[in-house]
Amino acid sequence: MTSQLRVIPLGGLGEIGKNMMAFEYEDDIVIVDCGVQFPEEGMFGVDLIIPDVSYLMERLDKIRAILITHGHEDHIGALPFILPQLKCPVYAPRLAHGLITAKLKERRAARDSVVEPIDPGVIHQFGKAFEVSWFRVCHSIPDAMGIAIGTPLGTVIHTGDFKIDHTPVDGRIFDLPSLAHYGDDGVLLLCSDSTYAEVPGYTTSEQVVGVALDRAIGEAKGRVMVATFASLVSRVQQVVDAAVKHGRKVSIVGRSMVDTVHVATELGYLTIPPGILVPLGETRKLPPEQVVLMTTGSQGEPTSALVRIAKQEHRDVNIVAGDTVIISATPIPGNELPVSHTIDNLLRQGAKVIYDRIATVHVHGHASQEELKLVLRLVRPRYFVPVHGEFRHLTAHAQLAWDLDVAKDGIFVLEDGDVLELSESGPKTGERVSAGPIFVDGLTTRDTASPVLNQRRSLSKDGVVVVVVTMDKKNGNLLGEPVAVASGFLDDSEAGTLFEELTAAVAKELTSHDIRQEEIDDLKAKVRETARSFIAGSARRSPMIIPVVLEV
Amino acid sequence: MTSQLRVIPLGGLGEIGKNMMAFEYEDDIVIVDCGVQFPEEGMFGVDLIIPDVSYLMERLDKIRAILITHGHEDHIGALPFILPQLKCPVYAPRLAHGLITAKLKERRAARDSVVEPIDPGVIHQFGKAFEVSWFRVCHSIPDAMGIAIGTPLGTVIHTGDFKIDHTPVDGRIFDLPSLAHYGDDGVLLLCSDSTYAEVPGYTTSEQVVGVALDRAIGEAKGRVMVATFASLVSRVQQVVDAAVKHGRKVSIVGRSMVDTVHVATELGYLTIPPGILVPLGETRKLPPEQVVLMTTGSQGEPTSALVRIAKQEHRDVNIVAGDTVIISATPIPGNELPVSHTIDNLLRQGAKVIYDRIATVHVHGHASQEELKLVLRLVRPRYFVPVHGEFRHLTAHAQLAWDLDVAKDGIFVLEDGDVLELSESGPKTGERVSAGPIFVDGLTTRDTASPVLNQRRSLSKDGVVVVVVTMDKKNGNLLGEPVAVASGFLDDSEAGTLFEELTAAVAKELTSHDIRQEEIDDLKAKVRETARSFIAGSARRSPMIIPVVLEV
Repeated sequence: MTSQLRVIPLGGLGEIGKNMMAFEYEDDIVIVDCGVQFPEEGMFGVDLIIPDVSYLMERLDKIRAILITHGHEDHIGALPFILPQLKCPVYAPRLAHGLITAKLKERRAARDSVVEPIDPGVIHQFGKAFEVSWFRVCHSIPDAMGIAIGTPLGTVIHTGDFKIDHTPVDGRIFDLPSLAHYGDDGVLLLCSDSTYAEVPGYTTSEQVVGVALDRAIGEAKGRVMVATFASLVSRVQQVVDAAVKHGRKVSIVGRSMVDTVHVATELGYLTIPPGILVPLGETRKLPPEQVVLMTTGSQGEPTSALVRIAKQEHRDVNIVAGDTVIISATPIPGNELPVSHTIDNLLRQGAKVIYDRIATVHVHGHASQEELKLVLRLVRPRYFVPVHGEFRHLTAHAQLAWDLDVAKDGIFVLEDGDVLELSESGPKTGERVSAGPIFVDGLTTRDTASPVLNQRRSLSKDGVVVVVVTMDKKNGNLLGEPVAVASGFLDDSEAGTLFEELTAAVAKELTSHDIRQEEIDDLKAKVRETARSFIAGSARRSPMIIPVVLEV
Repeated sequence: MTSQLRVIPLGGLGEIGKNMMAFEYEDDIVIVDCGVQFPEEGMFGVDLIIPDVSYLMERLDKIRAILITHGHEDHIGALPFILPQLKCPVYAPRLAHGLITAKLKERRAARDSVVEPIDPGVIHQFGKAFEVSWFRVCHSIPDAMGIAIGTPLGTVIHTGDFKIDHTPVDGRIFDLPSLAHYGDDGVLLLCSDSTYAEVPGYTTSEQVVGVALDRAIGEAKGRVMVATFASLVSRVQQVVDAAVKHGRKVSIVGRSMVDTVHVATELGYLTIPPGILVPLGETRKLPPEQVVLMTTGSQGEPTSALVRIAKQEHRDVNIVAGDTVIISATPIPGNELPVSHTIDNLLRQGAKVIYDRIATVHVHGHASQEELKLVLRLVRPRYFVPVHGEFRHLTAHAQLAWDLDVAKDGIFVLEDGDVLELSESGPKTGERVSAGPIFVDGLTTRDTASPVLNQRRSLSKDGVVVVVVTMDKKNGNLLGEPVAVASGFLDDSEAGTLFEELTAAVAKELTSHDIRQEEIDDLKAKVRETARSFIAGSARRSPMIIPVVLEV
């Protein structure tokens, strides 16, 4: 039997978010990234979504390390939940290392985890099978890297998230020569970022945004607010640079951005001249034309600083006429409406609002088609697995490779849980492992089998009606009329008469039987069915019905 | 006292949807459009949103007519709900007239309404004040018109929804000469479509889409499905033309599209050669390369034909490898995710999917900046009110007029309920009338004051916990332990112990007082507060708590 390299995507393939991919060879497993996903509409009450690691839990003794590509939440955010389970060391580029360390401190169970910083180009041995080194890429957070995983069958290149920016803000350019060297030496498998595989051409350089921001801040007559992603350190650098040039001070509003700026500054990924960063309180003493506020909320997140400011609910900041607000981001699919409402609210209060539709105040962090083709051409892998994207992004990326006629031994569009086995005798697919979403819901986690989310969905549509029936334990007679109470169903004025008729119908149904003969569960079912059909008939609605039968 | 023309936007200003605008002069009122809006995320259980017409209800004797611009739902959809209240005649272009008539038949209360078809260029007198005629515009439904309302103070031009397409599918071009004539004669007020006021340049002609569709259908090897808006009659025409050219038959799937095609064909707005339209069943007997299916579902609507097909839940249609699916639409903000999921599901089953990001298979129906400028230049109004758009669209449109230096007597960014009064002595704003959203919720309507929607929102997050306490009426003692039941809160396995402790806590709280002294409402409040604080402490959640106190 020949040995196999098993490629096991546990998150991020067929979806955007919770990236995680395991590589298994004989007795060794390494894992690339461990991210979260944020809940979509209809995932009621869910705080976060994390990968299902049950496959890994059954092979704990094999796991050598989690290898991190960069510090975005969809690549590191699940570590606090999953590290206490997997109990393995984490290796991460220095900025990601700083962010992870801060994050793990907040969660007791994960506090003792081992997290090691890595530098690009240094080789790390994991178990017998894996020889790993990182190489620099460009992305919308500094210190992003791809990973080269040497295996007995050949080298695997995982790009992480990337774009090819020849003029990045921090001057740290994509290490294309290393990629070319790997290609020259022969690459077994390429896993490459597919997020923008539908988009022709090249992704615009961060430099263009710098020019637009400088112009907008330079032209502003009053105070400027810039909203962007908390993790977009290069954007913070650009705003700071423009502020310095135009004689303004900068204050950061919003906890997650304050934290990121703190870590990035400490580690040297952000250069802020002394005296430029000031506390929010101090900006009030300055004339408006000397102030820039940087905030979170570029996605219309309800609890973010910008959204609270726009809704006039922020304790410290109010919009005044003459303010310029720059939304330096593009709405992530699903966030279009909250972003639009936020812009409207700012305009209503007299702010000038500059956003992606009217100026180039944002570029995204992922490679477009021409960059993806360049990577495919440099790496020339035997096998190709597009990663990081909805199914349509993965198929678009696969089509690109097909059109270039690279990866001649196989292009595989895998989704989470689809195992790819590579060995001397060729590739094999078809095996599936458990890789559904795990919902973090308050203090617990639940999977898709839990009825709780469906119950919430049902409650959200038509509300709930509770029908309480009290029985005499001795003779089985009803004690008084049944009682109905509701929430989210009808206004009290509408419900009054309906409930009188409803409880009468339930009482009639129950007294038509000898209920002493029946089990409590059967009685409950009778109450539920009577109430359901009465309400469907008279109000044409289907609220959740909770029957309570008490024996006194 | 001089007489005033009162302009009263009741819907569609500061939002996309439920367009409605009243014009009042002395004893006469005419109303332009009467549309619905579809609920956004968080409007749980709401079926539709319609305008608040309480201002009009107090002036029923003044209302002369509702004037319709075109047959889209956001312009005619509220008629079945509002006509029974306002009891006034409706005047509409012929296709809209056909669609309204079909729509009113379905609702008993609205069936006796008077709906008259109009033709462009014909003058209708409404009351003493208003002399109205319609003029042809281009839009994404045939027979769309703007309205010229002659008033004693001057002419009002309301564009309705429009773009300026010099090569529309049906050959009916925008009546620019009439617009120029009105401009020459002098226009008091222009109300013009703002939907795409942020977008530079010109909107692409429908002709370009025809070319792309023809190419895609011509190149397809197997069956073709085209999804678009049910009302997009010109798109249906383009698909039929391409089908005829490439030797295919067409079948329409989805009730709303079948209805629209029926009305449009009867009225001559759609030309389908005999034998081309076939029932769905018949397509199964044809080879795939001779079949085109047209469906609804281009917005990812859960109950639409395309979405059910994509989810393998459609009774009659399954995707097979070799199918080509063309999504001839752009997601309306808020629908991006369901559309994306639908594309993914189609790709997973082996279909080739062509959508707006990879080919010009859709253009939108609204004017871009250069077209808006052209209308402003031709009409040269004294006053300008941008209509039909979110607040940011209205302000962008106002900015365009400002930049052109037209409407020198006043540009007014109004939102729903903001009254503009024009008279010989000048313009006046500041008065507000009630114009909030009215939610159609099953058989009832409710406004924002109703607590029901907030209750549903709360239920959707953390579910509901019902705590039932039974008391002896005679001595005020508890009869047995309190009972707790829940839905959407925790899985049963998690809730068991929690509920034992919860009911014990409630019992303890109640037996610590002499509850005979207390009102039932006070007892309920005690039960609620005890349960709330216990659950917050032990499960860190805040479900809706419904206390029930029974006296037996």
